[in-house]
Amino acid sequence: MSNQYLDPNLKIFTLNSNVQLAEEIAQVVGVELGKCSVTRFSDGEIQINIEESIRGCDVYVVQATSSPVNERLMELLIMIDALKRASAKTINIVMPYYGYARQDRKARAREPITAKLVANLIETAGATRVITLDLHAPQIQGFFDIPIDHLMGVPILADYFKSKKFNDEIVIVSPDHGGVTRARKMADRLKAPIAIIDKRRPRPNVAEVMNIVGNIEGKIAILIDDIIDTAGTITLAANALIENGAKEVYASCTHPVLSGPAIERIENSKIKELVVTNSITLPEEKKIDKVVELSVAPLLGEAIIRVHENQSVSTLFD
Amino acid sequence: MSNQYLDPNLKIFTLNSNVQLAEEIAQVVGVELGKCSVTRFSDGEIQINIEESIRGCDVYVVQATSSPVNERLMELLIMIDALKRASAKTINIVMPYYGYARQDRKARAREPITAKLVANLIETAGATRVITLDLHAPQIQGFFDIPIDHLMGVPILADYFKSKKFNDEIVIVSPDHGGVTRARKMADRLKAPIAIIDKRRPRPNVAEVMNIVGNIEGKIAILIDDIIDTAGTITLAANALIENGAKEVYASCTHPVLSGPAIERIENSKIKELVVTNSITLPEEKKIDKVVELSVAPLLGEAIIRVHENQSVSTLFD
Amino acid sequence: MSNQYLDPNLKIFTLNSNVQLAEEIAQVVGVELGKCSVTRFSDGEIQINIEESIRGCDVYVVQATSSPVNERLMELLIMIDALKRASAKTINIVMPYYGYARQDRKARAREPITAKLVANLIETAGATRVITLDLHAPQIQGFFDIPIDHLMGVPILADYFKSKKFNDEIVIVSPDHGGVTRARKMADRLKAPIAIIDKRRPRPNVAEVMNIVGNIEGKIAILIDDIIDTAGTITLAANALIENGAKEVYASCTHPVLSGPAIERIENSKIKELVVTNSITLPEEKKIDKVVELSVAPLLGEAIIRVHENQSVSTLFD
Amino acid sequence: MSNQYLDPNLKIFTLNSNVQLAEEIAQVVGVELGKCSVTRFSDGEIQINIEESIRGCDVYVVQATSSPVNERLMELLIMIDALKRASAKTINIVMPYYGYARQDRKARAREPITAKLVANLIETAGATRVITLDLHAPQIQGFFDIPIDHLMGVPILADYFKSKKFNDEIVIVSPDHGGVTRARKMADRLKAPIAIIDKRRPRPNVAEVMNIVGNIEGKIAILIDDIIDTAGTITLAANALIENGAKEVYASCTHPVLSGPAIERIENSKIKELVVTNSITLPEEKKIDKVVELSVAPLLGEAIIRVHENQSVSTLFD
Amino acid sequence: MSNQYLDPNLKIFTLNSNVQLAEEIAQVVGVELGKCSVTRFSDGEIQINIEESIRGCDVYVVQATSSPVNERLMELLIMIDALKRASAKTINIVMPYYGYARQDRKARAREPITAKLVANLIETAGATRVITLDLHAPQIQGFFDIPIDHLMGVPILADYFKSKKFNDEIVIVSPDHGGVTRARKMADRLKAPIAIIDKRRPRPNVAEVMNIVGNIEGKIAILIDDIIDTAGTITLAANALIENGAKEVYASCTHPVLSGPAIERIENSKIKELVVTNSITLPEEKKIDKVVELSVAPLLGEAIIRVHENQSVSTLFD
Amino acid sequence: MSNQYLDPNLKIFTLNSNVQLAEEIAQVVGVELGKCSVTRFSDGEIQINIEESIRGCDVYVVQATSSPVNERLMELLIMIDALKRASAKTINIVMPYYGYARQDRKARAREPITAKLVANLIETAGATRVITLDLHAPQIQGFFDIPIDHLMGVPILADYFKSKKFNDEIVIVSPDHGGVTRARKMADRLKAPIAIIDKRRPRPNVAEVMNIVGNIEGKIAILIDDIIDTAGTITLAANALIENGAKEVYASCTHPVLSGPAIERIENSKIKELVVTNSITLPEEKKIDKVVELSVAPLLGEAIIRVHENQSVSTLFD
Repeated sequence: MSNQYLDPNLKIFTLNSNVQLAEEIAQVVGVELGKCSVTRFSDGEIQINIEESIRGCDVYVVQATSSPVNERLMELLIMIDALKRASAKTINIVMPYYGYARQDRKARAREPITAKLVANLIETAGATRVITLDLHAPQIQGFFDIPIDHLMGVPILADYFKSKKFNDEIVIVSPDHGGVTRARKMADRLKAPIAIIDKRRPRPNVAEVMNIVGNIEGKIAILIDDIIDTAGTITLAANALIENGAKEVYASCTHPVLSGPAIERIENSKIKELVVTNSITLPEEKKIDKVVELSVAPLLGEAIIRVHENQSVSTLFD
Repeated sequence: MSNQYLDPNLKIFTLNSNVQLAEEIAQVVGVELGKCSVTRFSDGEIQINIEESIRGCDVYVVQATSSPVNERLMELLIMIDALKRASAKTINIVMPYYGYARQDRKARAREPITAKLVANLIETAGATRVITLDLHAPQIQGFFDIPIDHLMGVPILADYFKSKKFNDEIVIVSPDHGGVTRARKMADRLKAPIAIIDKRRPRPNVAEVMNIVGNIEGKIAILIDDIIDTAGTITLAANALIENGAKEVYASCTHPVLSGPAIERIENSKIKELVVTNSITLPEEKKIDKVVELSVAPLLGEAIIRVHENQSVSTLFD
Repeated sequence: MSNQYLDPNLKIFTLNSNVQLAEEIAQVVGVELGKCSVTRFSDGEIQINIEESIRGCDVYVVQATSSPVNERLMELLIMIDALKRASAKTINIVMPYYGYARQDRKARAREPITAKLVANLIETAGATRVITLDLHAPQIQGFFDIPIDHLMGVPILADYFKSKKFNDEIVIVSPDHGGVTRARKMADRLKAPIAIIDKRRPRPNVAEVMNIVGNIEGKIAILIDDIIDTAGTITLAANALIENGAKEVYASCTHPVLSGPAIERIENSKIKELVVTNSITLPEEKKIDKVVELSVAPLLGEAIIRVHENQSVSTLFD
Repeated sequence: MSNQYLDPNLKIFTLNSNVQLAEEIAQVVGVELGKCSVTRFSDGEIQINIEESIRGCDVYVVQATSSPVNERLMELLIMIDALKRASAKTINIVMPYYGYARQDRKARAREPITAKLVANLIETAGATRVITLDLHAPQIQGFFDIPIDHLMGVPILADYFKSKKFNDEIVIVSPDHGGVTRARKMADRLKAPIAIIDKRRPRPNVAEVMNIVGNIEGKIAILIDDIIDTAGTITLAANALIENGAKEVYASCTHPVLSGPAIERIENSKIKELVVTNSITLPEEKKIDKVVELSVAPLLGEAIIRVHENQSVSTLFD
Repeated sequence: MSNQYLDPNLKIFTLNSNVQLAEEIAQVVGVELGKCSVTRFSDGEIQINIEESIRGCDVYVVQATSSPVNERLMELLIMIDALKRASAKTINIVMPYYGYARQDRKARAREPITAKLVANLIETAGATRVITLDLHAPQIQGFFDIPIDHLMGVPILADYFKSKKFNDEIVIVSPDHGGVTRARKMADRLKAPIAIIDKRRPRPNVAEVMNIVGNIEGKIAILIDDIIDTAGTITLAANALIENGAKEVYASCTHPVLSGPAIERIENSKIKELVVTNSITLPEEKKIDKVVELSVAPLLGEAIIRVHENQSVSTLFD
Repeated sequence: MSNQYLDPNLKIFTLNSNVQLAEEIAQVVGVELGKCSVTRFSDGEIQINIEESIRGCDVYVVQATSSPVNERLMELLIMIDALKRASAKTINIVMPYYGYARQDRKARAREPITAKLVANLIETAGATRVITLDLHAPQIQGFFDIPIDHLMGVPILADYFKSKKFNDEIVIVSPDHGGVTRARKMADRLKAPIAIIDKRRPRPNVAEVMNIVGNIEGKIAILIDDIIDTAGTITLAANALIENGAKEVYASCTHPVLSGPAIERIENSKIKELVVTNSITLPEEKKIDKVVELSVAPLLGEAIIRVHENQSVSTLFD
């Protein structure tokens, strides 16, 4: 490693969700990943072995709580417990993707607020800081009472599209009502107008229609979301855009959950390219030709260095 | 009082923010307001006298943390402390308006998340439940670990507009990117399409333009927001709508903060009517002709009864 | 249902681990199970729907944290969060089996104490009481600061063996050093002597030997453990007992984890019968002829009634 | 600045209550005040901008919770929240005056203990230490579980009177029953006897009389209190002393609240001089000729240096 | 028992400090004391046996933390733990005397605030309410966040002196600077003036003198304190009063600690009578002729009834 | 002192339980013991004077909670409170013996779990780490959420017996059912077999018999326990071993509680030697000829150094 980091008290560990990303981050920082194994006993209980002393160290644990989310979350909580009891000085959780973020409020009676529960569990286990990326709702920062460094993925996505140097006019499209602010931020970086997919049901017992609010005709449409899960909304949106006169449709998101029928839907959709980050590790079978993966390792690595050296992280926000 | 409530353990107290609303609520429930005075010592410190025993009672305290917000919040916290030490069985806070709700995330470096701080203060003081209305972000529910009953003001506003039986086509307009989901909910109730005011700055050093995304021409536009504060956004939006061909513009919001130049701006704007609730008490000078005030007392009173009798409150959500 | 329970505020819900046991318990108590569905979103996140009001109720949630343990535990925590926010009066967790109980101390450097972490998570989520059965270490009771009712499975197992009315002399055998106290309790109920399997390695690089401490020759040996997991220890013990002159070997435990090669090992072992409880739901393929399953529903149902009626539960301890 | 402090991790911020005192303290320490603005949004909500990175720093925040007390307290709590979330290493609150200190016990039924509530709020917000001066009751130290350095103002006041080198005999007078210990401490420093104003009501419906316990005839009387608020007690005491034969009357206190009619009463009273500290900022109109203001900046600055350098602060107590 | 209390959920237990007082209290309330033994193992560890079910009950535990204070305090904490784990509904601590109350602030560097520590320990153990009597400093109420009912002993003492119908003028004397407020309260009830013993050292290396501030000549002096411990101050004060012309001296206090040389000093002093309460159990050898013991059982019993029936306790304050 | 420790921020204090051990530990580390006195006021309340500044220091407090356990525990809690308020950086409790460890679970109805209560009290007071030795149950580690370094005494005892170089075959004997694991660990170090004393009552109303499970005839038996309290079990065991043919009997334990009749019983028993550590200070009268005391100072001193220098402590576990 060329750029070896000098302070031996900075240690980075990875659990099972993002092993390759963690290795990239470690390389950015200039350390070897800490030695540690996370396996299962025969009955499925998690067994953690931290194989080097971390007493008095500032430990950074890389783990997205992506699928299988409950396994990943319990790995994280048990690791935090082990680090706390092994006398780590600080326990910093690097979560490129925060699972259960969409359960962030009671939308109906007797619903849990699982995103808050998760925050409480992480604090109870003993974490002292969270570094994360594009929370589904920025208010989730307030679910924590420990410091949280909230980084932005939109600039990485925007830079990619800028590098395309499109000849045609572009329009940034929010696939739903809640994502307009995000679309506007993307649009500002690309100096483009916005449009919104206004899905609604005209009358009861009548199919939903994908109404488009805003002008997209003849333009290159870039759909932006924070999370693409089953890809139902985004692919319907893409098709509606083409049907209504868009010239080409790109889709982008920070967190490619891509569960269930997602890959098949994307493959069959009018989406030309789906641009995502590696906040969630994609298995090989999901890395189809349409999918472009951008790395958040430089961003997260730089954040770790700045946190460790007490430099401002805010310059990474924009 | 015709409908006297039978259980003497249900007590409702008001502090200084919404005295009249509290009286209406008490009447809905069928109780007299609890005896209590909240005054100031000569140096400005708050003095609370609870003038009847509340030992073992379920106490409901009505207080919006509207302007002067810090005074109102401290009144509330001190009241909770007094009730806790006086052995109230439960302390239920009825907050028609939740001040500091817009400081719900770190948008820039080194910002507080005051809405979370307020939640922590209320829990620390000893509250056991919060009943509130149209939180600026529904995620604020998750800032609490005590039960929170989150009621909706949109139906009250929608019912008012329904009763108008407009002859012309209407369109519900979100005045900014973050309010589109709310506009869609209003639109569903009124079976109307939506539009968005897409305020943006085309280039640096160029004035912001009020771009309108969606079709509003010849329609009656109803602007909807949760909070109208200085009324800058909403009045510019109204004027832009008229300039772009809207036939008439109504504005509506749950929480009429109406600070600073708000009333003057509304008076001088193209807004025909501003429809609000009494979640925040309007002083007489702000009750200009254009302002229509709807009462949330029936909603809050019914919620108190249902909470006290362990009935589901969720039917009040829709 | 013949014996309907009169107080409608007692509600029993089941999650996914022990549906049939929960139904038996509900029948013992005399209530219908509460309506509730626990499913998965496409990406694996847990979705809980509590389909009836539980405001002000005493809720009992039946869930063993058996395999898949992390899924079962997260279901439980999310359910607790939902119940808390839905204003349950008390949240009582009925855990027939407490997963991660064997990770109850730091046996080596940098190990977690996951059994304590789990207790902290359950308390943080909002549970107000735990009712459980044969904890791997009784000290786990002290991991909680909320009341915990710790019931005993040994009497159920002992009663079964008593009903056999063996003609030959019996001996109760502990399969390892840590289980001797449990064996002695079983022996007291059956008025029998004890023996211990003293597994040890005579010299480095020499195979472990199953030394037997105590007299077992010509006797019917009953092996007793709290948990049988991969069944390695218990089957080696059984075979060693037969080789050393035991006439017959029975095995018994409260919690049949039976993971990995367990069923095959038992099938191929000298064990005549394996007697277990339904604290962990056995899938059909594990219910081989040698396995006898006894129900803990009467015990748990009676405990729920006594807790709810403020009667002493301690009479259930013996 | 001549005496620049070398460790850049020590940062001092001021909020709005004592800007000039904070500047004096910063000069004593040898640093520039941290860049930060505390303003109001149009609706009165507090807006805090910390304009330099404080990540990993030991931050000292100077703020008395003097009038307007609720504004000052909320400024402080919000600042603490911002510093905590911005990853300050320690958050040290320098409170020259602790508002609500007189509400330190339940004197009557259903009273709050606001001084304890305030302590809880400060700890909940995230402060890690408090440095304060002459608490109304020293027991308020015990309202905190974080370390609190409690400094004394009496020596500053005593030194001033010593420097007067009075020719006549002096007597230190407590203006009420609760202040006798403080008077005795002052008397020890000035080697003087004490007297007490024993205000009491001889019979119901008869006016209170200012009985004087102790010998004051022909002496210079120095009244001492911790707080002078409306100045009713102290001016009646002064006049009674003169009427009963005292030659001259001086008054002194650490905290010049001086609310309502205080200045007028002092102006019109027999008090020759009122000696106070700048723990509370006096507006110009209250700095009448009779008022002598002594600075606590050297004391507080020295305390900050000692805290930061892990030296004993106790030498500052006497 | 003639006046049997009807609600079986009210249970009163006593530990070892005030067995007889507890029996009197139980008689006032109309219940039998709960069955419970508090003994010692051979090595001195406390063993508690609660011999009846208290599940769901409101339990009142009578225990003063008088000498041996650490034994009494640990008995109390362990009892609370046992009650909490045995599912008591509420745990109400009736502490006639609060040990360590005089360590209520840091008077010198590196002192503990043991009175606060004790409050924290009691809350951590699980108490839900404290009923106590004449705290050394009323601010100790604020050391708790659970409700605390603070009863007054002065009226009981005053009533006793009133019943004496003294012919001569009386004066109430505070034996030190901190007790003047208490003396004034006693004086108000007996319509008497006050005086103060102003112990001070005129110059270094000169003996302290017992200066008397106020007029006591020819009067019956009643010394009043909250606690009399070694009786040094009070007996010196009594003798000084006689030497300075008082006709007779009575002494009184709520809490007769009477440690070390106290009884001998009182016997040898000019004190005519020492009037105390049974908040602390006096052993027979301390019940000398001069000591008059008044019972607080009616006061505490009435308080328990009022707390249990949700009546105001404040009427007991005066 | 030859090996002076260089970092002045490491401070070791002793309270009253193990003064000599603390001095040995301090010598191992290379520091002087911190200046501090722990005395009693006349009424028995503990008075602590820390006579040097510890602001910002890492403080290690040596205190076993051995008899008188409640005094020792309260000394410890008050010392922690004093250190916390005096701004110690870390507060590390070195407890060679953890009192109340045997009350680690609810064995019967309505029992406390005093070992957990003690852990809660220590954490509430403000300790940040515990270093301890041979907990009665290793699960007590999980009673804490702060780091706990759990050291082993068995190796010290085993080394002593190894050094004896016995000519005859030895057998390690567990005196009861719960100690078999410990006996096996000792046996592994001495390469010996094990046996168990299986005390049981054959029929009701028949005396208990000391049945021996395992072969001990003609061997040197070494009884091992963690705690020897009244020595009833161990001496009966020793005598039973001799009666059943053991050649000689040694007894050993880490913690010599030796209360009540213990010394007399040992003196009169067949035990040849009782080998213990100085985790509990033995008074001179208990240091009879049969008792061999081994020091744990090297172990504890080394642990302190490793903790302070962030080295792994785990190498001390074996």
